[in-house]
Amino acid sequence: MNRVKAVVSYDGTNFAGYQSQPGLRTVQLEIDKALRKIHKEIPVHSVASGRTDAGVHAFGQVIHFDTPLSLPTDRWKMALNVLLPTDIRIVSTAYVDEDFHARYGAIGKTYKYVWTRSKVQSPFERNYAVHLGKWNPDVEIMQAAATHLIGTHDFTSFCSSKTATTNKVRTVKRLVLEEEGDLLTMTIEGNGFLYNMVRTIAGMLLAVGIGWNTPADVKRILESCDRNNAGKTAPAHGLYLESVDYED
Amino acid sequence: MNRVKAVVSYDGTNFAGYQSQPGLRTVQLEIDKALRKIHKEIPVHSVASGRTDAGVHAFGQVIHFDTPLSLPTDRWKMALNVLLPTDIRIVSTAYVDEDFHARYGAIGKTYKYVWTRSKVQSPFERNYAVHLGKWNPDVEIMQAAATHLIGTHDFTSFCSSKTATTNKVRTVKRLVLEEEGDLLTMTIEGNGFLYNMVRTIAGMLLAVGIGWNTPADVKRILESCDRNNAGKTAPAHGLYLESVDYED
Repeated sequence: MNRVKAVVSYDGTNFAGYQSQPGLRTVQLEIDKALRKIHKEIPVHSVASGRTDAGVHAFGQVIHFDTPLSLPTDRWKMALNVLLPTDIRIVSTAYVDEDFHARYGAIGKTYKYVWTRSKVQSPFERNYAVHLGKWNPDVEIMQAAATHLIGTHDFTSFCSSKTATTNKVRTVKRLVLEEEGDLLTMTIEGNGFLYNMVRTIAGMLLAVGIGWNTPADVKRILESCDRNNAGKTAPAHGLYLESVDYED
Repeated sequence: MNRVKAVVSYDGTNFAGYQSQPGLRTVQLEIDKALRKIHKEIPVHSVASGRTDAGVHAFGQVIHFDTPLSLPTDRWKMALNVLLPTDIRIVSTAYVDEDFHARYGAIGKTYKYVWTRSKVQSPFERNYAVHLGKWNPDVEIMQAAATHLIGTHDFTSFCSSKTATTNKVRTVKRLVLEEEGDLLTMTIEGNGFLYNMVRTIAGMLLAVGIGWNTPADVKRILESCDRNNAGKTAPAHGLYLESVDYED
């Protein structure tokens, strides 16, 4: 058997999330359907670095799958792109060692969260950036609040109360707010993220940016280890899985 | 009665074109539905500068409608945007003289046509730019061909054979090819366009860019006044109605 690693980009708008669910259109379902066709109806299951929620996008999701076939490396990308719907694209494919694992081998991930300050939201951005409307967040204050989250912390306050994982300690390596034109972007890099963690952090930093909370509140809420203290989870359609890192 | 002019932007992806058609989701239908709600179920019909086909987008379509209401100017924009689906946005509204007419008063229009050279088409561009795939058009040759179309000509060769209009003479004021990153854009400004004229020109210029035709062919085809001589009509989803001009 050969193991193939693929980098996958998808527009999450018309998917009920990444993971297969009976009766729903998911990214995994479409990928596994394409793999099955390539393998003449023999089921081949892909494994992703992690799931993403309905509406969440990806530039660089990573998957792997095992195959008895030995196509030239680039043929995998082409064969899959011919069969996949155009809201999923395979960016690259490569053969990897059999000990490569898209999920367990991931040592870091980078997400982006995108807001827009445009006066009237462009219809072309409606599924790709969260409209700030009347809110006019102060980016410097958001960055000041963000620094409290950088480092190794128990992120219980900043994940869904439905999170199954017991160990909620994660390391945030980088958390940067940037502006370009009408767009306000949060980039967050860490060794791993809890369920809804990026969207909860985005919601919290926005609350600070518009003056509902202070940077000191963020520190206090982090230390309280109580999800009830952090504010609203930011909407799914502003979120992008940018890349997944592995040991070389 | 007051006459209101509105500039409208829409993502054409999920519309069966601009104009109302029984049983289909069109831009006009949604706008007139919103106007009817504002007028407490009294039908109010909007008039647009012209129709756009299914899949065609707009940054600056222009419409007008008559109303007995006297809302403050900006309230029209807000009231309509609250009621409209998010793939249609009212960019601006203004009261105009009763002799303003969105269709008959239009003295010029600008369209953009967008292709992408990206190796793998981004899923985020799939409805907004035409993927060139293996084609690598030469922009300078396209521009040379374009110059033959600038000016006042009979554009019979460059419109749909279904065009009902008998006078097929139009003036193209500007026709520019530009590159920015992976995107190749054609901008065309004229006093008016025949049915499918912009997409036929886009298809023809691309055919020149990839060497299927020469700039001299374009001149010859224009002079032949025969639609069968121009090549394939370019796909709808690369086309944007950029703006509509009126006398001040």
